[in-house]
Amino acid sequence: MVRVISRAYCSSANLGSGFDVVAIALDVYYDEVMVSINRGNGNVVLEGIEGPFADLVSRDLNTAVAAVREVLKYVNRSDVDVYVRLWKGIPPSAGLGGSGASAVAAIKSLITALDLNLTNDEIIELAGRAEAVVAGEAHYDNVSASLLGGLVIIISQNPIKVVRLNTNAYFVVSTPVIRMPPNKTAIMRSILPKFVSLHDMVRNYGKLAALISGLITGNLALAGYGMEDYIIEPARSSYIPCYEVVKREAISNGALGVAISGAGPTLITLCENLESAKRISEVIKSTYTKCGYEVLIKVAQVGPGAEVIDVSYD
Amino acid sequence: MVRVISRAYCSSANLGSGFDVVAIALDVYYDEVMVSINRGNGNVVLEGIEGPFADLVSRDLNTAVAAVREVLKYVNRSDVDVYVRLWKGIPPSAGLGGSGASAVAAIKSLITALDLNLTNDEIIELAGRAEAVVAGEAHYDNVSASLLGGLVIIISQNPIKVVRLNTNAYFVVSTPVIRMPPNKTAIMRSILPKFVSLHDMVRNYGKLAALISGLITGNLALAGYGMEDYIIEPARSSYIPCYEVVKREAISNGALGVAISGAGPTLITLCENLESAKRISEVIKSTYTKCGYEVLIKVAQVGPGAEVIDVSYD
Repeated sequence: MVRVISRAYCSSANLGSGFDVVAIALDVYYDEVMVSINRGNGNVVLEGIEGPFADLVSRDLNTAVAAVREVLKYVNRSDVDVYVRLWKGIPPSAGLGGSGASAVAAIKSLITALDLNLTNDEIIELAGRAEAVVAGEAHYDNVSASLLGGLVIIISQNPIKVVRLNTNAYFVVSTPVIRMPPNKTAIMRSILPKFVSLHDMVRNYGKLAALISGLITGNLALAGYGMEDYIIEPARSSYIPCYEVVKREAISNGALGVAISGAGPTLITLCENLESAKRISEVIKSTYTKCGYEVLIKVAQVGPGAEVIDVSYD
Repeated sequence: MVRVISRAYCSSANLGSGFDVVAIALDVYYDEVMVSINRGNGNVVLEGIEGPFADLVSRDLNTAVAAVREVLKYVNRSDVDVYVRLWKGIPPSAGLGGSGASAVAAIKSLITALDLNLTNDEIIELAGRAEAVVAGEAHYDNVSASLLGGLVIIISQNPIKVVRLNTNAYFVVSTPVIRMPPNKTAIMRSILPKFVSLHDMVRNYGKLAALISGLITGNLALAGYGMEDYIIEPARSSYIPCYEVVKREAISNGALGVAISGAGPTLITLCENLESAKRISEVIKSTYTKCGYEVLIKVAQVGPGAEVIDVSYD
């Protein structure tokens, strides 16, 4: 029997103007998935869920389990049984790509245990399919960031093609403590406009171009400017607790940009440097308190890619 | 009396996915504008137009003259007469930003002659207004590239905000010899869709992100991938002579990407290096010939910004 543990970090998709195309790994929360393999008949068993957010994770619609099933199907292996344990360190349903990170960590462990050769694009494709179990449809932004680390750009959705880029920045990641409906992502997609005027598209092109060029070249003021969005955020912001007031207070205290992380309710705030991020995190914390919400708050840097952290044989 | 000559290079807007947001200066064609100042009453006189494309330039709707008028109005100067001579080296109505380059060179000369302090954003705004004389509405992409050189991104249209980025690449610039209607740009805008599905917008986001990140990081294959466009080019391509066949032949001979330059009919082809560009330019030339068109063809590198090349006093 072989047992592998892998870790995958949380991530923030969109960053304002980069809807479904831009995501960034963050070093503040992570999931770990332990996979144990025995000879068997293709059974996948969820042995347990631990960690600070264990109680908030669905046992029936678990992406770690779904991801293992997708891989076994993809490589056509029914000669093993797979036991899965999840350590849940990423707040679920928070817009931090937690279900994607679980899927990525599970696949990373499984392919190590089975000594499979899958490309990154294959892993992203399979993790995206597993995400569909929870989100209703496949999304590739969070899983790409969790797998590769750094800043990722989904340059093609079908077939999936992802580019990883280097960037370096400090963020404040603020997650109001609130129960979200289990189909949150689907709801937050259903409220989006189906069509966009060419004029608004071009306005958003400018923001997306600013976001990407700013992050790549280290011009963080430019990147922050690019975190404005005219299409997705106006539709979603009224569903996000304290959105307006947190954004206003953060910006007026020197933040470079504020955006909804994924489908929310987490907000991600770009800061000039570590000191600024620490100061702004205090401002944001007290803003949520005044606004009537408890909040999880962290200062984040860009996160690493998923990694195998332990392999053992019985 | 003071006399100033300035030069501004041609440019290519859009590069496929970057409609109204991305432009790049090219070192293959340029305009020069000589401006002479006397005491006077605010008259602006077009003294003459020379150069290889002089016969194709309108004397009544000239952007160099319009740009001088815009600047005089902006700085509220009616105490001088301004004499303008244009040397036209950029093929007009070709999609190479020729009218924008004339406007930029004229402004560069005028502000030097009058010792005016205008910011780049002010110059771009004024040159854009002058372009409206010819194009019907102000566009800032070509004038930004001609003024600043390199790769430019229009991150905001109103107010105008432009970022200049460094890049390095070889292009083939092919301009079929064909008489375009004087209101070409307006026509080529009137055929565009007014609304875009969110799905298509996201597809194009991926291309735009690839284009910009590829050009900035020197990953030219990525940049070429980003020159695909799903919204503007499909609407315009049937109006562009030999579009399909030139694109197909260029790509199958190793070109990294092909796009309509501005509103056409010029096509711009991204190549891996100089040798490849030379080889592909031969392929493109013979493709136009077979397709029944004469063609101006050049291998281009990224162009410099506008510059004053002579100042003299009588």
